[in-house]
Amino acid sequence: MRRILCTVEYDGTDYAGWQRQLNGLAVQQVLEEALARATGKPVAITGASRTDAGVHARGQAFHFDTESSIPPEKYPFVLNTMLPRDIRVHTGQEVPAEFHARFMTAGKRYTYRICNSRHGTALGRNLSAHVPLPLEESLMQSAAQTLLGTHDFAAFQASGGTAKTTVRTMRMAEVTRQEDDLTLVVEGDAFLYNMVRIIAGTLIEIGLRRRGTDAFLRAFDTMDRLALGVTAPACGLELTKVYYPEAALRTPEAVRWHED
Amino acid sequence: MRRILCTVEYDGTDYAGWQRQLNGLAVQQVLEEALARATGKPVAITGASRTDAGVHARGQAFHFDTESSIPPEKYPFVLNTMLPRDIRVHTGQEVPAEFHARFMTAGKRYTYRICNSRHGTALGRNLSAHVPLPLEESLMQSAAQTLLGTHDFAAFQASGGTAKTTVRTMRMAEVTRQEDDLTLVVEGDAFLYNMVRIIAGTLIEIGLRRRGTDAFLRAFDTMDRLALGVTAPACGLELTKVYYPEAALRTPEAVRWHED
Repeated sequence: MRRILCTVEYDGTDYAGWQRQLNGLAVQQVLEEALARATGKPVAITGASRTDAGVHARGQAFHFDTESSIPPEKYPFVLNTMLPRDIRVHTGQEVPAEFHARFMTAGKRYTYRICNSRHGTALGRNLSAHVPLPLEESLMQSAAQTLLGTHDFAAFQASGGTAKTTVRTMRMAEVTRQEDDLTLVVEGDAFLYNMVRIIAGTLIEIGLRRRGTDAFLRAFDTMDRLALGVTAPACGLELTKVYYPEAALRTPEAVRWHED
Repeated sequence: MRRILCTVEYDGTDYAGWQRQLNGLAVQQVLEEALARATGKPVAITGASRTDAGVHARGQAFHFDTESSIPPEKYPFVLNTMLPRDIRVHTGQEVPAEFHARFMTAGKRYTYRICNSRHGTALGRNLSAHVPLPLEESLMQSAAQTLLGTHDFAAFQASGGTAKTTVRTMRMAEVTRQEDDLTLVVEGDAFLYNMVRIIAGTLIEIGLRRRGTDAFLRAFDTMDRLALGVTAPACGLELTKVYYPEAALRTPEAVRWHED
């Protein structure tokens, strides 16, 4: 039995999110069915992040156990021939039996895209949120900087969050504009449920001058969800990258070699 | 009766091209039906470029005549409420009765996108062509430079082209890379049928070292279509911008004012 870690990109538009559920097709289900066909046995996969319906991923990660003799680095080739075009597996590697795609993450990067033109965008319609009124990105960037560091993000989660602690460390938060396209990139050790979409929604209100640039600081103080803006639409969000500690990824062989 | 010029962006993935036809839904037809509903009368529109099936546009232009009292600048608002999300009208303005969206163009800009990663892209699957083998973009950029200036592009057209002369002037041709994404931008006074896709297909073969960087120069000499590469896929192509001479756009009022 070997544990395999894969990275996968998907367009979440036509899926009911990552996690298997009754009310729609999940990305997890499509991948598990392809893996079952590839290996000849039922396979259960565990994702790093349970992205919501409509949320995209450029670098989601998942692990699974298999007795298949398929070389780990061949999984992208084997799976992509069976997967729909809106899901692409990019890498496969063996990891230690103790590795866990969800519990061992060292950090995640998310990207949130906003189309800030009067009439929105046809070409980017599924990959961005549309804000028709002018956004002042310098205010948004200024507010984003107040997220950096270690804070109690208790106010930054949707009801339904199950995290034991709400203290998180944000190591990157950047708002940039290229013509009509605004991009928010955030990176941190871990994120609460809907946290990035709440940050994006708050930044939009700040960019519209409907909230001050101190909104996040107030929310840290008051721990009040109402100190923040509405949850921004799912379609603007992309899970860009999942980080793991290097040691967690060492294959048994590499570990043995390293211990020699 | 007024002549109106609009610019429109569309995702060509689900359309049988710009022009009305029997074997599928055309962008032109969708726009004409929306205009008929908006103005209460049948409307015929004329596009700057008859893009092929699957080709996209960020800045296609079209004109039409109407007796409607809708203010020209309101057409984007009126039409976008009726149009599907993969078609967005961005601007509307009155132009002189002599203006013609197709015959008065002063130039066009096209963008061709290539995803140059082993397994392609889920998120950009409809907006780029996939080339899995490594492309050497410096060779492509070097060859692109040989397109600049005025040449007889007779070899650069698919059969079915109806142009009277095949002499064209190319004023921009740039190949750039951002990680796995290669972008070709070309701008010229006019383009022959399938010309940009033939250029893109040839550049891909040059980037793969299957053709020399002198391929375009040889094609100018020999006027032989076989001196060039295959026609690259439609999905990578976008009509980015259409240029008109400033004088052609002057409304009758502006012209009168100018002549005072």
